Amino acid sequence: MLRIMLNSKSMKQHPYIIILLLIGFAFISGCGDDAEKPPVDYLALAAKKIYTPPGEHDQFYGFFSGGNAGQIYVYGFPSGRMLSTIPVFSRNPATGYGYSPETKALLRTVYGFIPWDDASGTALSQTDGLYDGRWLFVSAANTPRIARINLATFETVEICELPNSAGTTASPIITENSEYIIAASRFAVPVPQKDTSIATNQNFKCMATFVKLAADGKMSIAFQVKLPGFNFAAGDAGRGASHGWAFLSCYNSEQAFDDLNANSALYDSDYIAAINWKAAEKAFDDVKHKIIKSHYYINRYDEPKQTAKSELNDFVYTLDPAEIPGLVYLLPAPKSPMGVDVSPDGEYIISNGRLAPAAVVFSFSKMLAAINDEKNDGEIAGITILNYKAVLENEVENVGIGPVNSAFDSDGNVYTAAFETSEIVKWRLSSGEVSGRINVHYSPQNILLPGSGTAKPFGDFIISLNAESHDRFIPTGTDFAQSAQMIDISGNKMKILLDFPVAGAPQSAEFIEAAVIKSNINKIISIKNNHHLYATKSANKAKVRRQNNIVHVYMAAAVSKFTPDTIGNIKVGDEVRFHVTNLQQKSGKSIGFAILGANNVNLRILPAQTRTLVWLPKSPGIYPFYNTEFTSLKYLEMSGYVRVSGKSMIISEPVDSSKIVAADSLNNNVKDSFNQDESGKQ
Amino acid sequence: MLRIMLNSKSMKQHPYIIILLLIGFAFISGCGDDAEKPPVDYLALAAKKIYTPPGEHDQFYGFFSGGNAGQIYVYGFPSGRMLSTIPVFSRNPATGYGYSPETKALLRTVYGFIPWDDASGTALSQTDGLYDGRWLFVSAANTPRIARINLATFETVEICELPNSAGTTASPIITENSEYIIAASRFAVPVPQKDTSIATNQNFKCMATFVKLAADGKMSIAFQVKLPGFNFAAGDAGRGASHGWAFLSCYNSEQAFDDLNANSALYDSDYIAAINWKAAEKAFDDVKHKIIKSHYYINRYDEPKQTAKSELNDFVYTLDPAEIPGLVYLLPAPKSPMGVDVSPDGEYIISNGRLAPAAVVFSFSKMLAAINDEKNDGEIAGITILNYKAVLENEVENVGIGPVNSAFDSDGNVYTAAFETSEIVKWRLSSGEVSGRINVHYSPQNILLPGSGTAKPFGDFIISLNAESHDRFIPTGTDFAQSAQMIDISGNKMKILLDFPVAGAPQSAEFIEAAVIKSNINKIISIKNNHHLYATKSANKAKVRRQNNIVHVYMAAAVSKFTPDTIGNIKVGDEVRFHVTNLQQKSGKSIGFAILGANNVNLRILPAQTRTLVWLPKSPGIYPFYNTEFTSLKYLEMSGYVRVSGKSMIISEPVDSSKIVAADSLNNNVKDSFNQDESGKQ
Repeated sequence: MLRIMLNSKSMKQHPYIIILLLIGFAFISGCGDDAEKPPVDYLALAAKKIYTPPGEHDQFYGFFSGGNAGQIYVYGFPSGRMLSTIPVFSRNPATGYGYSPETKALLRTVYGFIPWDDASGTALSQTDGLYDGRWLFVSAANTPRIARINLATFETVEICELPNSAGTTASPIITENSEYIIAASRFAVPVPQKDTSIATNQNFKCMATFVKLAADGKMSIAFQVKLPGFNFAAGDAGRGASHGWAFLSCYNSEQAFDDLNANSALYDSDYIAAINWKAAEKAFDDVKHKIIKSHYYINRYDEPKQTAKSELNDFVYTLDPAEIPGLVYLLPAPKSPMGVDVSPDGEYIISNGRLAPAAVVFSFSKMLAAINDEKNDGEIAGITILNYKAVLENEVENVGIGPVNSAFDSDGNVYTAAFETSEIVKWRLSSGEVSGRINVHYSPQNILLPGSGTAKPFGDFIISLNAESHDRFIPTGTDFAQSAQMIDISGNKMKILLDFPVAGAPQSAEFIEAAVIKSNINKIISIKNNHHLYATKSANKAKVRRQNNIVHVYMAAAVSKFTPDTIGNIKVGDEVRFHVTNLQQKSGKSIGFAILGANNVNLRILPAQTRTLVWLPKSPGIYPFYNTEFTSLKYLEMSGYVRVSGKSMIISEPVDSSKIVAADSLNNNVKDSFNQDESGKQ
Repeated sequence: MLRIMLNSKSMKQHPYIIILLLIGFAFISGCGDDAEKPPVDYLALAAKKIYTPPGEHDQFYGFFSGGNAGQIYVYGFPSGRMLSTIPVFSRNPATGYGYSPETKALLRTVYGFIPWDDASGTALSQTDGLYDGRWLFVSAANTPRIARINLATFETVEICELPNSAGTTASPIITENSEYIIAASRFAVPVPQKDTSIATNQNFKCMATFVKLAADGKMSIAFQVKLPGFNFAAGDAGRGASHGWAFLSCYNSEQAFDDLNANSALYDSDYIAAINWKAAEKAFDDVKHKIIKSHYYINRYDEPKQTAKSELNDFVYTLDPAEIPGLVYLLPAPKSPMGVDVSPDGEYIISNGRLAPAAVVFSFSKMLAAINDEKNDGEIAGITILNYKAVLENEVENVGIGPVNSAFDSDGNVYTAAFETSEIVKWRLSSGEVSGRINVHYSPQNILLPGSGTAKPFGDFIISLNAESHDRFIPTGTDFAQSAQMIDISGNKMKILLDFPVAGAPQSAEFIEAAVIKSNINKIISIKNNHHLYATKSANKAKVRRQNNIVHVYMAAAVSKFTPDTIGNIKVGDEVRFHVTNLQQKSGKSIGFAILGANNVNLRILPAQTRTLVWLPKSPGIYPFYNTEFTSLKYLEMSGYVRVSGKSMIISEPVDSSKIVAADSLNNNVKDSFNQDESGKQ
């Protein structure tokens, strides 16, 4: 019978049972922990697994979403060293990303320029269900967007806004041949938006957006599937057997609009929405779609021009499951699920109910049979609910309290992370038999196994992304390091190899063999390929040009000299635009540029790159500028002077905000004015 | 005789000698490298020195200046793991630092609000020449400032602007009882600033600023010492024997104003400026100081109010060495020096000439004798130049090409970093005898030994901050990870233990025993101590208050609910100020807050803290907000809705910059308007 449903119901009615369970688990796990220490030779493990001697290379890249840092952090594994930061949704003062006119357009939305977002989900491009190393996709949860990072340059090259969506965490879900990126709204909103009572949220919708990927990676919104106003939390795409389908987990099927902490936990079960996107494509061809007015931007970085452009779109195609039979089905799932994970062969779909102490395994073939045999349990908003028993393969209990998600290895094992009892539980996919468990420190919010989410998992370790680190590291004020743990799964018994703090607040990560990417990385960096509108390709081409109060400085930067390095005839009220080109053409040879008193950040100019800094001198005087990076022994000599004449602006007491704004604003003005082609609808 | 002077002259005249030397060194070091590998058991070393098993703690904190990242990165050692990021001079989208009204005032300058700076130097507070664990000081090079971080909270609590200065890298230099922070200008500028020909730079000055530290750490500028218009690069304070003195290195004593790459390398020697700050204090008491008009801000974070204030100052006291005999002396130093490092006992001052292949050791007692016996070699701008031979203790050759700085261990050894030949050279302070060398990878720009710079060095490892990493890590696009290496110095032979990438572009770092800080860290986090103007100390005190078009939302945040979580009666054109208080009182329990479409970053609210997000709704509709951090199993349920009514603003095509500005600007307006007391002159 439906043990989970009964369990969860009984627990709802008798909350003390949960408390007892918690105490029990805590006790058991506590012992497990102590009992474990003696036999583990951490040194031998570290030696075998993680220590990467000087000069030796890591085997894997790990791309960690930065969460509310809005960036991607690149780690090397097995060493766990952070190698690089890729700015995506947040302005980055270190590089000028989001400040320089060349990059600001990437952060444009219909709400205006947004300097930040919550980088939640990640996905790597796939071919035949395997990583192909071309692109990394990152989703923004707060003002929903999808970013594409070019893994040949490790730069953000495109950001596509998701209209009619909010708080999107079930994203980016990639199909096994990179046909689509799928993203489902977490919060229901009126579609289209309107001024209405919050209490009418039964009419709100959650849209599942299907972003089409072109052969060159370019994103465009193909269509949106209208889903009920539940809260969609996570998802996975079908593969192999289940190719053509996508699976989305949801909580709050109660459709509560306030105090979700209590009001979204009333029902004993929620749902997994199974979307047949092949059927969606057919419905689209059969012209069963509607058009709704929806504004959204697609921002693209023109790599030859080294400058981003924004394209405003004003409608989307929508598909309504109520009008298209077979497009969407609902599978009853354990209470308030988060992770939904499809097995490497695509036959099994695992749902973790945060408020039900079990992982539920659904069978894709049983699902097809249930659809065929119409084994239904009613419908919601015209969407058929399939019978739980009919689609159920197994209910795996004993996975701890608060299971959040699961990962697959290459040997038929599943690893489930339990938040409340802080443990990873290992079990057999075939039998559901639990074969091991290990405590993590503390409260795992996601479990990552390299290659899980593809047809061929390849990792022999798992990373537990933990919500709490408590006493694991020396303290850093009232704020603690976000923590991750690396766990060896090569043997029968799981062993913790390494605790490592992670930057930002990662919610997910992707791992890929370094060999797959290394071959793609741009090795030829030629100034010839720099087609920036204001590039200066040799020192003798450097110049200063005035247009009314706009002064363009075409500056060349090489070791160890800026050309020009003395600039005169600048007046208070002028707007000086330093277009600095790095003449070096070797990887790693970046140059920095900053000038005294600029209400701006510095420029970090990569080899053969041009970047622009806008400066508004406010008072007469002599203003030094210099290279902010240690590019050579004589980097200290890499500096210059600008002479500013004219009437001084008065220093207000206090400096009032309008001045601060005036300063900020110039970046924007400059971006739009120096290159009309670069912004707006194409 | 003056070997170094001759060497450097001959090298100037015969550059091929340098090339030959380079090739020679490269060859030798290449061999050294290969020859070295077999005997080193990296595993054993890693085991003994760096591997920190899960749950075990690091012994040292390492505070790395982020360089052009503008932040401080906190590492644990010996593991080399990055534990935390402390925003200092750069806005931080992850936390809201520099965006929230509470923190913006910290980034105020006489040039207006500046969202970034080049975090170059670092210093820890000292008592009796030893670290006391109270404060960390960080200097901004571009728009010169000094920041103070409270090591009880790991938060930036004060930033003091340095007037009449530019490109300040010789900073922050702390005296052995934290009497002063000293900072010397790297670029000469007119003092006071004026509109004048760059070619008149012979009249420009470099000011050495003496920032007085109060018992509670508060900074104020005591006076500035007027120095010639050289370029001051680095410095160290006297200790023990040399207490009361400070030593500053300078290059470009040629006072070239352009093409410094060539024009600042004409002379065979530059200088170390020795400043007697006890004499300065006496001169000040004797009223030999002048007053010059100079505007600068001191920004302080009021910890009980959790809000920063700015104080505008309008003059500084200056002291002119030409009028105050005995205040400053110049020691002839090897060509274009960078590091100047005072030995633990204070008797020896080591100068590294980047363009002279030697480290020069000066004797403090010989310096006093030379002053006493008037062993002079003329003067510059009224400042006596002491005779080189008279102050020289030793010239240590064979320290490689391009020595940049030196560090001291507790056994009388000195370690010098050579940039061009990529090596660390170990030698005896007493004899100058070179006892070992090791290749690093590549181009060390700074060498760090825990406790060097105090009376008692305590590290048994050194960190080499390298300018280049080339092939040391798997590639990350055309940009490479900045790199550091940890080198074991416990034995006779130096051994590289670990390559680790560093975040940002660190130029320096400080190390301190974790035990010294841990005891200071705030453990009591009580909502009672929150005196924020808009704090909401319990859920039942949450409320919404309108003042014209300003709507104050007094919001309480706890696991797993925001109160209020449904908000109506908001109109397009309103300015909504979410004042969110985190009711949790346990370390590490931060909460995030973000709302759909805000032209702003999220708030990261620490336990018992209040932070404000300003939001300008632009269109009618339903706007979800949510918690951006995984604070509990039910973090997904921690969300709410805001209803917005009124007329829609038109979406421009493209979004024009004025809108972007309008969005940005509100933070500033809000900061100044919601709390007048918070900004401006006190």
